[in-house]
Amino acid sequence: MIEQLSLNVWTTKNWSLAEAVAGCVEQGVPGIGLWRDKVAEHGLDAAAKLVRDAGLTVTSLCRGGFFTSPDWLADNHAAVDECVALGTNVLVLVVGGLYRGSKDLPAARAAVTDGIAELAPYAERRGVKLAIEPLHPMFCADRAVVSTLGQALDIADEVAVRTGCRNVGVCIDTYHIWWDPDVFKQIERAGAGDRIHAFQVCDFLLPIPADALLGRGHVGDGVIDVAAFARAVQATGYKGFTEVEIFNQEIWDTPGEQTLRTVIDRHTQLFADLD
Amino acid sequence: MIEQLSLNVWTTKNWSLAEAVAGCVEQGVPGIGLWRDKVAEHGLDAAAKLVRDAGLTVTSLCRGGFFTSPDWLADNHAAVDECVALGTNVLVLVVGGLYRGSKDLPAARAAVTDGIAELAPYAERRGVKLAIEPLHPMFCADRAVVSTLGQALDIADEVAVRTGCRNVGVCIDTYHIWWDPDVFKQIERAGAGDRIHAFQVCDFLLPIPADALLGRGHVGDGVIDVAAFARAVQATGYKGFTEVEIFNQEIWDTPGEQTLRTVIDRHTQLFADLD
Repeated sequence: MIEQLSLNVWTTKNWSLAEAVAGCVEQGVPGIGLWRDKVAEHGLDAAAKLVRDAGLTVTSLCRGGFFTSPDWLADNHAAVDECVALGTNVLVLVVGGLYRGSKDLPAARAAVTDGIAELAPYAERRGVKLAIEPLHPMFCADRAVVSTLGQALDIADEVAVRTGCRNVGVCIDTYHIWWDPDVFKQIERAGAGDRIHAFQVCDFLLPIPADALLGRGHVGDGVIDVAAFARAVQATGYKGFTEVEIFNQEIWDTPGEQTLRTVIDRHTQLFADLD
Repeated sequence: MIEQLSLNVWTTKNWSLAEAVAGCVEQGVPGIGLWRDKVAEHGLDAAAKLVRDAGLTVTSLCRGGFFTSPDWLADNHAAVDECVALGTNVLVLVVGGLYRGSKDLPAARAAVTDGIAELAPYAERRGVKLAIEPLHPMFCADRAVVSTLGQALDIADEVAVRTGCRNVGVCIDTYHIWWDPDVFKQIERAGAGDRIHAFQVCDFLLPIPADALLGRGHVGDGVIDVAAFARAVQATGYKGFTEVEIFNQEIWDTPGEQTLRTVIDRHTQLFADLD
């Protein structure tokens, strides 16, 4: 199943974009998930040419969102435009946390729905799908007030009602949602509406490290039954890529070639176990 | 509202049980939440006499649970018996994580429901209520596979159906559930069934510390709108105590008298703001 594997460039953080693209070509990985910072380092047009010439599929761009920050609209328009330039039709949304200095979670959540409703028509006109990514509740205050898949789908429903746009769906990342008692029902719901715009995998490690963002591991190294999620996503008829996105200092300190080999091995093992 | 305030003994961790009891009496705090380790240090019968002679209400005993551990049944029977000895009718259940070496979350969750169904009749005969405490999803793998209030209430419903027991409810702790988009609806549901057996407050601090267990703060120092929770719990008709349970190294390093004064100040402020 390597033909459906995508390397998210933050997994090999110490690789430049050019190195990541070369690594994927060398090891036969056909997909790449991009982040705007790495694209900006390389230059947008040059990055677009680089991945196109390499024959890679850009499976997603991270990230739009942060709807509770000033200037969110201009920044999200720019993110949509970058998707178009890079030849990907999926923008991942990390929706943002509480307003600075505020404890009003309902207000922040309302701002997210309003922001996505504002952004969706622009993105739809440009052929870009918005993938709301629920983040683990430990990031609720500072990164994403959307914490569950059900909540993300409720927002997508609401935006569809308000705008008529059908381009809002979800990014399913095993790390963030594995604990949710309702998650398999919600994966089915997402799939039935054809709203799984991205599927990202990695594992949840214990203990949670000092920087809580970095507690992700290679598939198989943590506590998540990742196969159950791959199976559930497949069962909805999802035919897209599986993107491997890992934030982990030890993995970042490992040579990129070696990390990518591990990613491929684990991915191959995962999908072999499914059959 | 100090007449409804309870000090959980782990908030002043460096105080012995005798010191905590004396502190409560000295500063006029009428309730105390006990942990089994501190009770054992003092001796069960002596501890029971100590709090009784001091005229304190024991608002809860922590903890039963850990249904995926060996010997859970004997340990939970002992915990129920200790409740009776200490004169409290509330046993808080921290339900436990995955089975050792397992990634089977549904199996662990089934074990929790089965375990509570096994324990509930014994506890009911002894006049003890079981308070299932959903823990923050960051503790799902190693401490509690029950992550939301809705899930805890579903388990209580299921146990009631299976056993006919009506003594299973929840412990609502703001730290663990503040992020849940469904939480206010579930608080209402818990209250309507008279199943709020304990209400614990503290705040959620950022950044999450190196030991993720210790990221709790005094009410007002973090990101939670604690007043919204106090109001929601009150609105259900809950007339019980508000117990302050904080795990935080800096607070533990502060003299107990001072910590207790801060607890009282924040509590008084919180309930003044509600009126």
